Amino acid sequence: MEISLTRADMTVQKDRLYFDSYSDNSESIRGKVVLDVGAGTGVLSIFCAQAGAKKVYAVEACSIAEQAQITVKHNNMEDRIEVIRGTVETVDLPETVDVIVSEWMGYALLHESMLNSVLYARDKWLKPGGIILPSKAELYITPVIDPVVEDRLHFWYTVKDQYGVDMSCMSGFARKCIMNSDITVSSVTCEDVLSHPARFAELDLHSVTPEELRSVKGQFRCESFGSSAVNAFCVYFTVTFPCPDSTAPLVLSTSPCKPETHWKQAVLYLDAPVEVVQDTPITGEVRMYPSEENARHICIHKTPSKISCLSIYLS
Amino acid sequence: MEISLTRADMTVQKDRLYFDSYSDNSESIRGKVVLDVGAGTGVLSIFCAQAGAKKVYAVEACSIAEQAQITVKHNNMEDRIEVIRGTVETVDLPETVDVIVSEWMGYALLHESMLNSVLYARDKWLKPGGIILPSKAELYITPVIDPVVEDRLHFWYTVKDQYGVDMSCMSGFARKCIMNSDITVSSVTCEDVLSHPARFAELDLHSVTPEELRSVKGQFRCESFGSSAVNAFCVYFTVTFPCPDSTAPLVLSTSPCKPETHWKQAVLYLDAPVEVVQDTPITGEVRMYPSEENARHICIHKTPSKISCLSIYLS
Repeated sequence: MEISLTRADMTVQKDRLYFDSYSDNSESIRGKVVLDVGAGTGVLSIFCAQAGAKKVYAVEACSIAEQAQITVKHNNMEDRIEVIRGTVETVDLPETVDVIVSEWMGYALLHESMLNSVLYARDKWLKPGGIILPSKAELYITPVIDPVVEDRLHFWYTVKDQYGVDMSCMSGFARKCIMNSDITVSSVTCEDVLSHPARFAELDLHSVTPEELRSVKGQFRCESFGSSAVNAFCVYFTVTFPCPDSTAPLVLSTSPCKPETHWKQAVLYLDAPVEVVQDTPITGEVRMYPSEENARHICIHKTPSKISCLSIYLS
Repeated sequence: MEISLTRADMTVQKDRLYFDSYSDNSESIRGKVVLDVGAGTGVLSIFCAQAGAKKVYAVEACSIAEQAQITVKHNNMEDRIEVIRGTVETVDLPETVDVIVSEWMGYALLHESMLNSVLYARDKWLKPGGIILPSKAELYITPVIDPVVEDRLHFWYTVKDQYGVDMSCMSGFARKCIMNSDITVSSVTCEDVLSHPARFAELDLHSVTPEELRSVKGQFRCESFGSSAVNAFCVYFTVTFPCPDSTAPLVLSTSPCKPETHWKQAVLYLDAPVEVVQDTPITGEVRMYPSEENARHICIHKTPSKISCLSIYLS
C-alpha cells in the first residue's frame, strides 16, 4: 500500500489474497483478537474485522496511521479496530492476541523487511497456539539469461562500426560495474528462466528465530532446460496462508512466471556468462545474512567448479 | 555513457549528434586545442581527434578516466589526447584552449549538471573568441495529463466495490504524497502533451554567468489543444550545436515528442487537475534555483488564478 512506489493495481493482487485468506480463515479469525503489525492504510485490519474479528490492534509507526484512523472511522469500525501509532517493539497492548497478520515482506523477502518486528510481536503478544498469517515463507532461485545486459555489453563492440572508435575495452569494465552493483530488483521475463526453480530456504513463521534470520541459507540444484548462456540468478519468494476452511492453502508467489508484483525479482549477475546445455546440473549454495551496516548480503557459490561468488548488499 | 543507468542504445542518439556536430564543425576543430570537461569514457575526445583536433585535454575526475586512457591507447591517439584525472577546477593545463566540449546536462537540464564546471573552465581556460559545444541550452514547459497518476488515485474509490471497504479518503492523501515528492523523472508520452511547448529560458553558454545559473527563470504562455484535464507540467530541454559547415544547427531535444533519451522529462504535478478547453490560455512563471542543500528548486505559479505553486527539490 506504499503510495509513491507501488502501482495501485499491483496492490490489488496482494490485497485480494489477504482478503481471500481471511475469508478462508474465518474460523481462525471470527471472535478472535488480532494484531496487525505495520498496518499502513489499515486495509488488512479492516479485512480482519470483516472476517469477524472481535478486536484488531492496528499498529503503525508512520504518519499513514492517521489515514488508517480516518478509514476505520469511514467504515464504522472504530468499535472493533484500534489504530495505535508506534512501533510494535514499543507499544503496549491491553491483551495478548490470537492472530498476527502482517504484510512484512521486502525485496528478495528479507531486504528492508519487517519480519523481525513480526517475530518480536509473536514472542511478546501472541497467545500459545495462536496463528500468524501468512504462516510460511519460501525462497527460490533459478538460473536466467538477461539478454538486455548482454546487448548493453555487446554495444561496446559495435562502436567501431558506427564511429570508427574501438571501445571494446569498455565491455569488461561495464560488466564489472554491473557485477559490483547492489542487488538489482527488476522484472525477469518468464521466457528468460532457464530451469525449474529450486527452493533453498523455508521459514516457518511460528518457529523461526531472529537468530536464524541472521543466516538464511540453503543448497540448490537445478537442471537447465536447454542450450543457453546463464548470466544471472533470479531469487524470489512465496508466502503461504493456510486455509482450514478451504481445501488448499493460498500462495502469494513472486515468481517471474506469475503475474508481476511490486516486489518483482532480485537478480544476481555472474562475473561472466556460462554456457549450459539440456540437463546441465547447476548446483550451489545461497546464504543471505545481514552485513555489518544493517544490510543483507547474498553470496552464491556455483559448484562443482566455483565459477562465481556474488556479493550483493541489501542495505 | 553512464554504464549502469543508461541504456547503451540511448547513448547512441546523443553520441551520434556530438559526432555529427564535430564533423560539421571541422573548421572550428581542425588543428585546434580542445578541452573535454568530464570526459567519461573519452568518446567525445576521440570524436574531436577524429575531426582533426591538434590536441585534446580529456579531464575526468572519476575512475572511468582509466578506461578513457585505455580506449585512447587502443585507438592510437595518445599523441593527440591527454587524459587528465582530476576536476576541471583543480587541474593545471599547459595552455589555453580554442574549444570546450562537454556532455554536462542533467535531469531537467540543471539537476546534477556539470554546467558550473563548464563555465569555470570557460572563464579560466578558453581563449577569447573560443567556442563551446554545445553553445546554447533552452528550457521548455508544456501542460500534460498523466493518466496513470489519475488511475492510481481513482483506484482508492474502487476498493469499496472490490472489498467492501471505503478507502476513498486515501485518494487525497495519495495525491499529496505525489505533489510533495521530489522531482519526478519519467517518460511523458507525446499524446499526453496538451499544448505546443513554451520556451521559458535560454542559456548562451558563451555568456551565462554562474550567478545567473542561481536563478534561471522565465514566463510562459501556452494555449491548450482541446478539452482535457491538466494534472501536471512537463519540463524538458534542448541543446544546440552551431554547424558553420552545414546549413542548419544540430539540436539535441529531450521533448516528449522526440525519440526518448536517458534524460526523459521532468514532471511537476499540480495539487488538483484543472479542466481546460480548446485555446484556454495557460500562463505562468517558472523559476529554477538551488536550494540551500546544494539542490535545485522549481516553483511554478499558474496565473491568472494562482492555482498551484509546486516546490520540487532537485537534490
